[in-house]
This record gives sequence, structure tokens and C-alpha cells, in this order.
Amino acid sequence: MPSMVGMEMPTEVHAFVRRTHTERVLRALRERGALSRGEIAEVVGLSRTTVSEITRDLLRRGVIVVVDTDAAVRAGSGRPAERLALDPNSGQFLGVDFGHRRVHVAVADASHEIVASGRQRYPDSAGWPERISAAFALIDRLGAECGVHFHALQGIGIGVTGPHPMSSAPHAPEGAFGPGFAAAREDVDGSFAERFGAPVIVDNNTRFAALAEAITGGGTVEDLLYVRLSDGVGGALVVAGRLVAGATGLAGELGHVTVLPGGPRCRCGKAGCLETVASVPTILASCQSRGAAVGSLDELRAAVRRGDPVVGRVLREAASAVGRAVGMVAMVVNPAEVVIGGEIAHLAPVLVRQVTATVAAELFPWSAAMPVIRCARLSDDDGALGALAALFHSSPLLAGHPEPARISAQPA
Amino acid sequence: MPSMVGMEMPTEVHAFVRRTHTERVLRALRERGALSRGEIAEVVGLSRTTVSEITRDLLRRGVIVVVDTDAAVRAGSGRPAERLALDPNSGQFLGVDFGHRRVHVAVADASHEIVASGRQRYPDSAGWPERISAAFALIDRLGAECGVHFHALQGIGIGVTGPHPMSSAPHAPEGAFGPGFAAAREDVDGSFAERFGAPVIVDNNTRFAALAEAITGGGTVEDLLYVRLSDGVGGALVVAGRLVAGATGLAGELGHVTVLPGGPRCRCGKAGCLETVASVPTILASCQSRGAAVGSLDELRAAVRRGDPVVGRVLREAASAVGRAVGMVAMVVNPAEVVIGGEIAHLAPVLVRQVTATVAAELFPWSAAMPVIRCARLSDDDGALGALAALFHSSPLLAGHPEPARISAQPA
Repeated sequence: MPSMVGMEMPTEVHAFVRRTHTERVLRALRERGALSRGEIAEVVGLSRTTVSEITRDLLRRGVIVVVDTDAAVRAGSGRPAERLALDPNSGQFLGVDFGHRRVHVAVADASHEIVASGRQRYPDSAGWPERISAAFALIDRLGAECGVHFHALQGIGIGVTGPHPMSSAPHAPEGAFGPGFAAAREDVDGSFAERFGAPVIVDNNTRFAALAEAITGGGTVEDLLYVRLSDGVGGALVVAGRLVAGATGLAGELGHVTVLPGGPRCRCGKAGCLETVASVPTILASCQSRGAAVGSLDELRAAVRRGDPVVGRVLREAASAVGRAVGMVAMVVNPAEVVIGGEIAHLAPVLVRQVTATVAAELFPWSAAMPVIRCARLSDDDGALGALAALFHSSPLLAGHPEPARISAQPA
Repeated sequence: MPSMVGMEMPTEVHAFVRRTHTERVLRALRERGALSRGEIAEVVGLSRTTVSEITRDLLRRGVIVVVDTDAAVRAGSGRPAERLALDPNSGQFLGVDFGHRRVHVAVADASHEIVASGRQRYPDSAGWPERISAAFALIDRLGAECGVHFHALQGIGIGVTGPHPMSSAPHAPEGAFGPGFAAAREDVDGSFAERFGAPVIVDNNTRFAALAEAITGGGTVEDLLYVRLSDGVGGALVVAGRLVAGATGLAGELGHVTVLPGGPRCRCGKAGCLETVASVPTILASCQSRGAAVGSLDELRAAVRRGDPVVGRVLREAASAVGRAVGMVAMVVNPAEVVIGGEIAHLAPVLVRQVTATVAAELFPWSAAMPVIRCARLSDDDGALGALAALFHSSPLLAGHPEPARISAQPA
């Protein structure tokens, strides 16, 4: 087999291996408590040299501490070995996900374990000061519950609705993304940084959710398209192991792909966007206009269970539109998985079935390109986990993604 | 400005800097002839240590040689310094691009300079043995012309029509990609490796062309969509600085996105694919069926020049379809540039104009996502340059792209 002269092993691979090793060291400390470097090396099967490098870095970052030496328990002679352990009081991470009607917060400790999480509702009309206050109150409550004071936050990852903060999106129609995104970026970023004195990374929460889906479930999915059917229709892409922001931070606007030329007016100003057919409000409205008394997701669930034909037809039509848009993307990007998120995808299995059928028809000459199409594993409340994942930077998916410093350096 | 605790500088950046430094050393040797390490350090503005590391690597790879010492020209005392120069007889690279009707070959020397190039036609019906023989004859001729014997080839990059070799594409209809791709992969790879005893990298030539467009023109475009209007319609994506292969190597099939549901039958088996509206043969056929006597690209060029209204209408319709497909991709992937390739794009400026107008309409609520849309800088004959770029691995676009060894490791 020919091998390429003069080509180096990709450096990402090296960084990825190092991260994996670090994770294994942290897991050993989490599961077994204090260990000497020699014990760590034995438990995780790495060389003493590698373990020393990793623990040096973790000590420097304050993730672990030297708790004692093994002098008391040591049988042999020689210098007593230091025993290392996770520092439970340092290095927490906050994942925060601002949805349209609630904020969800997850707290992870220095070993990247989730130690607390919770949600707080607010009205859809709430402005950013109210949303941020709700988040702070929730964080205080979580801190009190788990005895954490957040005095040593390593970082805060914040998911928000609307486009990516790298873009100022000056031409988006007012109100299209809820409270103006520019304001969101400034207030959220600044408020959290000031309150906690910690670095903040802000991104679109659909993008964080895609990241969470790509890294949960065992193994990492390198190429994934995430579609969220909710108050609107959102999308996010992982391509070649990277979360895609796009040239101006606007990647993922699947909801505004035209699927019905000349169709219903969309809040974005165009007509026939996917969102005008497949968002939860338009699906409910369509059921009602055809005589099905379905005014909420609960009623939709009941109608699906009793096999209401009108509701079934509306759902298949919506899913066909999703499938056409997904099929186009699949043809061009060739993802391994397509994940349909949003509560409605769980309560109406016909959606995933019909999306799958439509995508299969679009791709049939290239059936080798057919992705696995499935419901989201994580609920809509789990966007905070994606924000945490982004923060840990522990996934190779984020290599190449803008560093927080770079995001903060963007003009508001 | 907050900075992220515990996050390292991306290792790709380091590798990229190193490659850039290596390029500068090679350029200095190319432009000035033999130089000592100290002279190189002075010319390129790098430290002696860095230059020594780089030249050690280049000597090991056989790209440069020690030609003499500076004893003859040296004024001061001390040990004479070795003078280094490019080895003109070692380390050539071949870029080979197999199109439907011709093969194009470019030869680069160890310093990555193109030293010879040429093309050889064959009939569309030619099988792989004939195509490969044509390439070998062309390579022999080029070698004779520039006095190169190809005894020290560093690598061969080969572009082919059809999907990426990582996919066996078992379900593609027979003949859809010209001679069966599986056969192509086996024969081409094996034949060149055997003939030249050099490592071979094979990929889709549209993808190589996209790479060439992304790295020419000063600076690298990190997010680019390439569309080729030719006998068929091909596409390729660069996303977040990476050439996208997709989960099964099928990314980029823009030509088979459905743009006219229920439209004309496509050779792929579906109906209304972009290719049924915007390939050169369908554009010419459409002109003819509406009474315009346009049977070739030359006649089309003449018709465009004299402002033939039928031809203008056909071109605008084709470009609108391209624009709808590009608009969708732009909405989801948010590229900085869209490049329209193929000879027809150059001779009918209305194409790029109409694509731009359609994409702008699709994106108007997100005008910050509007890409630059332009004609390809390189001609269709320049796919060999993309193959060379892939080979040099000198572009960060290829970090993360499968290494040749990995490609060769795929089952046929």
C-alpha cells in the first residue's frame, strides 16, 4: 500500500488523542478518588511520562489538587509519592440555554460531570433583563442546592435563539428572532462575564443542540444535520467533524429554505419557507383550518394516538416538506445522520417516518448517501449540555470553531 | 476581554505556520539558487533553529541537496558552511485530471513550481485502459520536453469524474458516471502506482477544482461552493476551511437536487434534477427546441453576442434553477463565495448575473449571508492544479481530509 511521502499525521489526531487521555485520567480520579501518578498510569494504561504531562496541565488549570502523599500507606522505601484528586471546589462550568419561554442551566464540575441542573420559565414576551435575572436566580438556587459557590468558574457557555453572534445580522427583520439578537449578544455576554468574572462563549442554541446530539450516544458523528421543529424551524450542521458557523455565522437556516414557491408568507419576509409548513404553530393551524380540533401539542398527541386522519395528513405534508429540504442538503453535504428535534418529533412518529421516505426518494440513485434519520436523543431542555460541550472544547467537533476570545473580539 | 482557561492554541495553526515557513524557504532557494542556512535565515526572516529544522526535513525528503560549501567565497574564519539548493532531478509531483474527453497533466518540481503541463484528448467512449495509456503517453512526452525522468516522484494526485473513491457507490445506475467508478478507482490507482512506484491520491475532479478555486486568487476562501455547468452539473463544497467529502464520499451532488418536481427525466433515474435544466447539453437542446439554431458552445457564444432573445431566456431559466439550488445551500451552509465553473459560464455572463439575482432573492432576509458569486478563475483544464494542491497538502483546506493511506485502505 502506498504511503504519502512528506505528509505528516494530522495534528488534530494528536490533539484528540491527548484530550481522550486527559478524559481517562479525570475519569479514574472521579471513580477512584485520590491516586498517585503511578497508580493513575496503571489504571488508565498510559506511560508515566504521559500521565505526568497530563497531571501537570490539570494541576496548572486547577482542575486537580495534591491532597497528600502515600507515605502513610507506603510499604517500600524511596520518596513518598504525591496523591492527586479532583478539586471539587474549583473549576465549575455553567451551560446556559435561553429558549423562547425558559432558561435551562446545567452545572458541571472540574471533571466535566453534571452536578446540578434546572429550568426556569419566563413569558415569551420577556426582554433580556428579565431572562437574565431568571437565569441568575436559577443559578443561585442550583448553587445553594449543591453547595457550590461558583467562585471559580472555568467558563460559561450560553445558547441563545437567533443567529450566531459572529454576525450582526443587520438585515434580519425586526422581531424575527425574538428580542433583537445584537442586544442579546451584548447583554448576555456582558452580564454573565460581570457577574461571574468568567469567560463566556455565546452561540445559537440549535447549533449547541446539534453538537450535543453528535457527541452523545457513543462515538462521535462526524457529519450530522440537525433540524428542530418548534415555534420556528431551526437547523444546524456538523460537517467533517466540525460545527459549521458559515462565513458570516448564519449557517443552518434550514427553516427559511423555500419549499413551496409562492406559498404562505413567512415572518422572515419571503414566501413558502419550510417554517411556514413545518413549525409547530403552522402545523396546529393547518389542522384547525381543516376541521381538526387540535390547539396544543397535548391535543395533537391525543389526535395522533386515535389515528385522526386529518392530523395524519397535515403531519405527512409537513414532513414531506422537511424531507425535501433535508434531501437537498443530504445530496450536497452527505451527512451520516439527520436528527429531528423538537417535542413534536417525539409525539408524532409519523414525522420521522415521512421525512425518511421523502429523503429516500430524493436520494434513491445515491442510496449510499442515505443518512440515518432519527428523533433527537436529548430533549429541548438539553441545549445546555451542548453549551457545556462547546465550553469543554473536549470534542474534536469544535476544533477550528472560533475560540471565545475571537468571538468576543467581534464588533457588536 | 475574557480568555478561555485551559484551551490550547489549535494545533492546525502550528502545522500551518510550519508549512508557510517551509514554503518561504523553498521560495528563497528557487529565487536565489544555492544558499547557506545562515543566508536562508536572513532572507526569510526566521531563526537559525527553525531554518535548521526545516532544511533537515527537506534534506531527508530529498527536496533539497547540499551542493557545496561556502569555503571558496568565505571571508571570515571558522568551519565552512554548507550551501543548500533545490534538487531539480528529484521530488516531482504529478497532477492528473481525467475528464470525460481528455486528460490533463501538470508536473510540479520539488519546490511546488509547475514545470510542464499538457493535455491529451480521447473519445468519451474510451475505457480506462485507453484513458490511462493516453495519460502515460502524455507524461512521457512532457518528461522528454522538460528533461525530467520521473524517477523520484513524490506523489501523484489524480482527479476523476464520478463520486469520491471512498464510496463504492454500488447503487449508482450503470453509466451515470461514465466508465464504472469502482473500476476507475482500482485501475487508475494501481496503474499509476505500479508504473511510477509513487503514492497516489484519487478524488473527484470537481472537488479538486473547488480546492484550486479556494486557494488561488490570493488568500484562502474558507467557505466556498463550486458549481460546474458542463456535460453534467457537478458541485463541491469547502466548509470551515475543509474540502467536504461527506459521510460516504458523496458530498457535492448539486446536479441532482430536485429543482423542477415532476420535470424532465434525469439520467440518474429521478425527474427534475438541476442537471436536466442546467447542463450544457440540456441548455443547447432547449435552445433548439425553441427554434434557436444553437448546436455547440461556439454557436451559443455567437447567439449570446448578437443578443438572441430565445437563447437569453433559456440561459436565464437555467441560471434561475441553479440559483434556487445554490440559494438553498447558501441558506444552510453560508459560504463566502460561490464559483460557477464550466466554459459556458465564461461565454454567457448572463448566467452568473441571473444566479446572483436568484440567490439574492432567496437570501434577502439574510443579506448578510449573501455570498460573492463569480465565474471560475481557472479553466476546466486546471483540475490538475487542484490534484497537485491536494498532493502538496500545503493548504490548510486539506487538514482532516483523508490521507492517501486511508483512501487506499478502503475496500474496492
